[in-house]
Amino acid sequence: MSKTKIAIIGAGGLTGKELLGLLAHHKDFEVVHITSNQVHGKSLQEVFPGNPYLPQLNFVKHESEIPQGVTVVLATPNEASMEMAPQLLKKGHKVIDLSGSYRLHDKQKFEKAYKFPHAHFDQMQNVVFGIPELFREKLKNANFVSNPGCYATSGILPIAILGDLRSRIQGPVIIDSKSGVSGAGGRTEEITFAYTNVYENFRAYKVLSHQHEPEIEEYAFVGTQPSEIVFTPHLLPVYRGIISTTYIRFQEGVKEEHILEKLESKVKSEPFLRLYSSPEEIELRKVQGSNFLDMGFRMRGNTLVLVSALDNLVKGAAGQALQNLNLMHGYTETEGLLK
Amino acid sequence: MSKTKIAIIGAGGLTGKELLGLLAHHKDFEVVHITSNQVHGKSLQEVFPGNPYLPQLNFVKHESEIPQGVTVVLATPNEASMEMAPQLLKKGHKVIDLSGSYRLHDKQKFEKAYKFPHAHFDQMQNVVFGIPELFREKLKNANFVSNPGCYATSGILPIAILGDLRSRIQGPVIIDSKSGVSGAGGRTEEITFAYTNVYENFRAYKVLSHQHEPEIEEYAFVGTQPSEIVFTPHLLPVYRGIISTTYIRFQEGVKEEHILEKLESKVKSEPFLRLYSSPEEIELRKVQGSNFLDMGFRMRGNTLVLVSALDNLVKGAAGQALQNLNLMHGYTETEGLLK
Amino acid sequence: MSKTKIAIIGAGGLTGKELLGLLAHHKDFEVVHITSNQVHGKSLQEVFPGNPYLPQLNFVKHESEIPQGVTVVLATPNEASMEMAPQLLKKGHKVIDLSGSYRLHDKQKFEKAYKFPHAHFDQMQNVVFGIPELFREKLKNANFVSNPGCYATSGILPIAILGDLRSRIQGPVIIDSKSGVSGAGGRTEEITFAYTNVYENFRAYKVLSHQHEPEIEEYAFVGTQPSEIVFTPHLLPVYRGIISTTYIRFQEGVKEEHILEKLESKVKSEPFLRLYSSPEEIELRKVQGSNFLDMGFRMRGNTLVLVSALDNLVKGAAGQALQNLNLMHGYTETEGLLK
Amino acid sequence: MSKTKIAIIGAGGLTGKELLGLLAHHKDFEVVHITSNQVHGKSLQEVFPGNPYLPQLNFVKHESEIPQGVTVVLATPNEASMEMAPQLLKKGHKVIDLSGSYRLHDKQKFEKAYKFPHAHFDQMQNVVFGIPELFREKLKNANFVSNPGCYATSGILPIAILGDLRSRIQGPVIIDSKSGVSGAGGRTEEITFAYTNVYENFRAYKVLSHQHEPEIEEYAFVGTQPSEIVFTPHLLPVYRGIISTTYIRFQEGVKEEHILEKLESKVKSEPFLRLYSSPEEIELRKVQGSNFLDMGFRMRGNTLVLVSALDNLVKGAAGQALQNLNLMHGYTETEGLLK
Repeated sequence: MSKTKIAIIGAGGLTGKELLGLLAHHKDFEVVHITSNQVHGKSLQEVFPGNPYLPQLNFVKHESEIPQGVTVVLATPNEASMEMAPQLLKKGHKVIDLSGSYRLHDKQKFEKAYKFPHAHFDQMQNVVFGIPELFREKLKNANFVSNPGCYATSGILPIAILGDLRSRIQGPVIIDSKSGVSGAGGRTEEITFAYTNVYENFRAYKVLSHQHEPEIEEYAFVGTQPSEIVFTPHLLPVYRGIISTTYIRFQEGVKEEHILEKLESKVKSEPFLRLYSSPEEIELRKVQGSNFLDMGFRMRGNTLVLVSALDNLVKGAAGQALQNLNLMHGYTETEGLLK
Repeated sequence: MSKTKIAIIGAGGLTGKELLGLLAHHKDFEVVHITSNQVHGKSLQEVFPGNPYLPQLNFVKHESEIPQGVTVVLATPNEASMEMAPQLLKKGHKVIDLSGSYRLHDKQKFEKAYKFPHAHFDQMQNVVFGIPELFREKLKNANFVSNPGCYATSGILPIAILGDLRSRIQGPVIIDSKSGVSGAGGRTEEITFAYTNVYENFRAYKVLSHQHEPEIEEYAFVGTQPSEIVFTPHLLPVYRGIISTTYIRFQEGVKEEHILEKLESKVKSEPFLRLYSSPEEIELRKVQGSNFLDMGFRMRGNTLVLVSALDNLVKGAAGQALQNLNLMHGYTETEGLLK
Repeated sequence: MSKTKIAIIGAGGLTGKELLGLLAHHKDFEVVHITSNQVHGKSLQEVFPGNPYLPQLNFVKHESEIPQGVTVVLATPNEASMEMAPQLLKKGHKVIDLSGSYRLHDKQKFEKAYKFPHAHFDQMQNVVFGIPELFREKLKNANFVSNPGCYATSGILPIAILGDLRSRIQGPVIIDSKSGVSGAGGRTEEITFAYTNVYENFRAYKVLSHQHEPEIEEYAFVGTQPSEIVFTPHLLPVYRGIISTTYIRFQEGVKEEHILEKLESKVKSEPFLRLYSSPEEIELRKVQGSNFLDMGFRMRGNTLVLVSALDNLVKGAAGQALQNLNLMHGYTETEGLLK
Repeated sequence: MSKTKIAIIGAGGLTGKELLGLLAHHKDFEVVHITSNQVHGKSLQEVFPGNPYLPQLNFVKHESEIPQGVTVVLATPNEASMEMAPQLLKKGHKVIDLSGSYRLHDKQKFEKAYKFPHAHFDQMQNVVFGIPELFREKLKNANFVSNPGCYATSGILPIAILGDLRSRIQGPVIIDSKSGVSGAGGRTEEITFAYTNVYENFRAYKVLSHQHEPEIEEYAFVGTQPSEIVFTPHLLPVYRGIISTTYIRFQEGVKEEHILEKLESKVKSEPFLRLYSSPEEIELRKVQGSNFLDMGFRMRGNTLVLVSALDNLVKGAAGQALQNLNLMHGYTETEGLLK
């Protein structure tokens, strides 16, 4: 059977690199077209000399003609994705967008979070949000998928899988997240990401103003009334991985066993969710390089403390994208992500 | 004028090392006696070759006779401090204890947190808790001071200085703390602290069961009714420094300006508290090696997010101890800690 | 065609983990038996939760019966390998030994370097040293292969491929190597490898006494008269990778173009050797996770400065082992190591 | 007695910061004037919030009038120092220049190394090279001192103190150096120094072309015929410290005891040189923050392997500058650098 052909627009970035690495071991997909405005003309081996499994392929410019019928991955900045997605869809390409441009259904919240006007907001009717644990069936028939943010995935899933217990939450849900530099833009020249400013250092950023906060608010409470999300991202002196410590206060009567039951039943049927017997067992080390989201929790009185971990470049970006691509094309969901 | 003589029991550890470094630049104190059961017989220069300012002094055993009339710093494990403090006080020494043995006034909470019976709990009547910002006057006349825990200092101060606003807190106060390995016991042989397990890693530990949680609960709410503290410590891949992100929900009507006013008025009169105009400005880099506690906050609705930073070895241990020693002996509080 | 079955003895260590990871993507090999005396009874997923591609397999004890006819990888300590290899060979297993026990043909040098008597030195007649770039043909027919040390591979190859130019070397060859902790034993409890002692630190160790020095001396000069090797290993605060800076003084008349010609001609026909146009282009980043050995050099007068890099866990251990396993079984040499 | 007044031109950089920190504890110097073109107008506390011992002082522009009679420290780029030094000397200021502009007495070598023409080379007659261990007496009467480079100090001293043994060196001396980012320019925006490119990485740079190589060649062999220096700097993923591994081949008859005797006799009379009994004892940890240069060596046959360590910001820059300032003003050489 012939493989499904993939084009990656903006393949020279960290997510593009990660996705190329995953696809290199995938039996059903074949990358045929990669673009980059920085390194066009160069080969994958030149640009990513560390990964020997990458195919023999050269970067071309964004503008270059995209082969008909291929599935397109947009690993482009927000505004570029916003512009390209509709055109590609019109040409009949299946599209998965890794940017933030097609995640929020509230135009005001979008423009407040992303600070530019959305020129193609009508597309929000057609897009499917790419968290398989929540939208698996829709994803199987989707032509247009918006891949979630790394912090958003880390924040949404532990809440969403609490199911009807979410209706018994009191007050705001607090998500204290810590991310490695690859999730926070660490490839840039910014002095903020100079070794001297990251190593042996730690700090919060975009407190109460991160663009993933409204994304968590929209998708963590699907099917129930939303609680306020209080989200604080921090910058860790590590390269990859996000740990989120989530604090939820429940109404009287919600007990540890109810939480355990919900999480266990959900995790049982999910290939990439893992539940540990204590929050102390959760660490970046266990998820780096994998598509897993690990969780552990403890409860005291009505207060739940849940620690979750994922790799921002895999389950937080390229890995989840591949999970979605598998679903969109009718392949085994775990293909290329799990033995 | 002759200097005040100091003995440090257990001077071979990280805190002892830090205190020796600070005292080396102090004009009114002179260290005359240092003990260590691991390295007795060796000189300071052999044990800490990195610090050229240390005095010519050799380590002796814990048991060795302590010179009469010297002020004693106990940098010993909890049970050792518990035993030694009363004897030293009886002999007329002034004592400052850096362990956790004389911090909690609730015997049950103490024994639950520290997991051993307290043989000298009567001493709790005489001890002063060593946070100058809260107990300055008492400290000036104290013969027995219990120096606070590093996490505790980081957790207590931002709450305590809110003054009467604390009576308008709703629900639990959440403190999400991140500490470098020197605060979490990183000098030990434990495989947990092997480079391989700390570098490029991050994790929570002692969730809802850390011994500093009851300490925060006891001292953050002095003079008002206490709120529940929900405290989660995490291990950072850095050597020194603690950042705590504190989440407080207030009743209707508490506004950002009220918080600002409280913090500003308190900070104005305190030499080691610094308030920044935004929480994003707080970082370990700015406090490492100093006795400062830095704070910045943001508010949305009734929810306060306050980020604070300190150096666990200085304001969290040796620096605060020196601040207390200055007060106990009638010296300038900032001597040896500030230009 | 059915896959070749593999048993890994001592699969719980860093090299075992790495080899399992590589074999998980290999089309011709199947791991059927893994042993560990620390974690027997546990599954691969429990022991290495970070790698989702690992097969469903449980660790058994070293003593457990090894299935007939499987190829055995010894990832065991030196003395264990020394004992097991002959027994396994007698039973007709193909064996590749990752320890140092069967590398040196000079018994005195062996016992000086490894500090224990060699009980089966007669086996040195049958073993093939596992550097494909030097012994490819022999490896194709080998039943017993000794996989080289990580430093040794890094030291031997840049010299050996200089071919007849090696006969024009003056004085000792100096190899100044820097390794990440995974190459230097960083998984141990030793306080030397505590985060506090590795991070922000750097030091030399085993100066002129490292057991890989005689290994380099034996194999770097095959087919020519040997020069003295002066080898200094250093410990880097990184996890994986070795960079060696090699200094060679040649007799009059050896010019940069001669070196370039030798290296280029050799590299052209070798899948895992890469030559860069300058030594400044060589960095750990480019080889981590791959089986490549990268080289770049500069010459001034008669002095050659050659910088080489490899991943100590891949080309320095598990990757080269797989390269050898491919050859031993008549598979494509690069299978599972290169696209 | 009134203090000697100091002006630091370019005090906003890493070396300026370090020198300000050292002077803050010095009893005989007082910093009265600090300039920076980046942060003029700001106070020391704003720019360096981490150091509580800094004086109350504001940065002014380079152009601002320098108070008469003060001693001037030039922590400026090479060309700026080249221009300013002669003017300041003419006005009667004592000057110490931390740049490379007044170190090399061979104009051709200077212009090859620094890549700009030297407009004031006549000043080379008046300048004293600031290594007290070699030029102490001259420094006591010097009005113009050129402070050595960090690599240069690390490379020169171990060779120079070998005294007459230097005349029995065969062939080139090889110096393999490894430096933290603060020595290699890590404060810049360059992508080379981004966390992502430094952490978990290692590489050589400026192989055989570093500007400190001719500096080592000029000063390591004062009083004897020079050997060729082969110098390779490498970038460590650490912040501060340099370790140099020096390889020297001697003529027949030079024995370990001769080396030991030379080093011991020299070290005995030097406050900042320390000799350890083995090269494995040398590590960055032991010199970071201090003005010490640590050494340890091993010999085999005629080959000496000597490992040395220093803090590039202290003995490699600000600390040695203070040592020189003490000598230039007749103060105790170790004042402010040693207890």
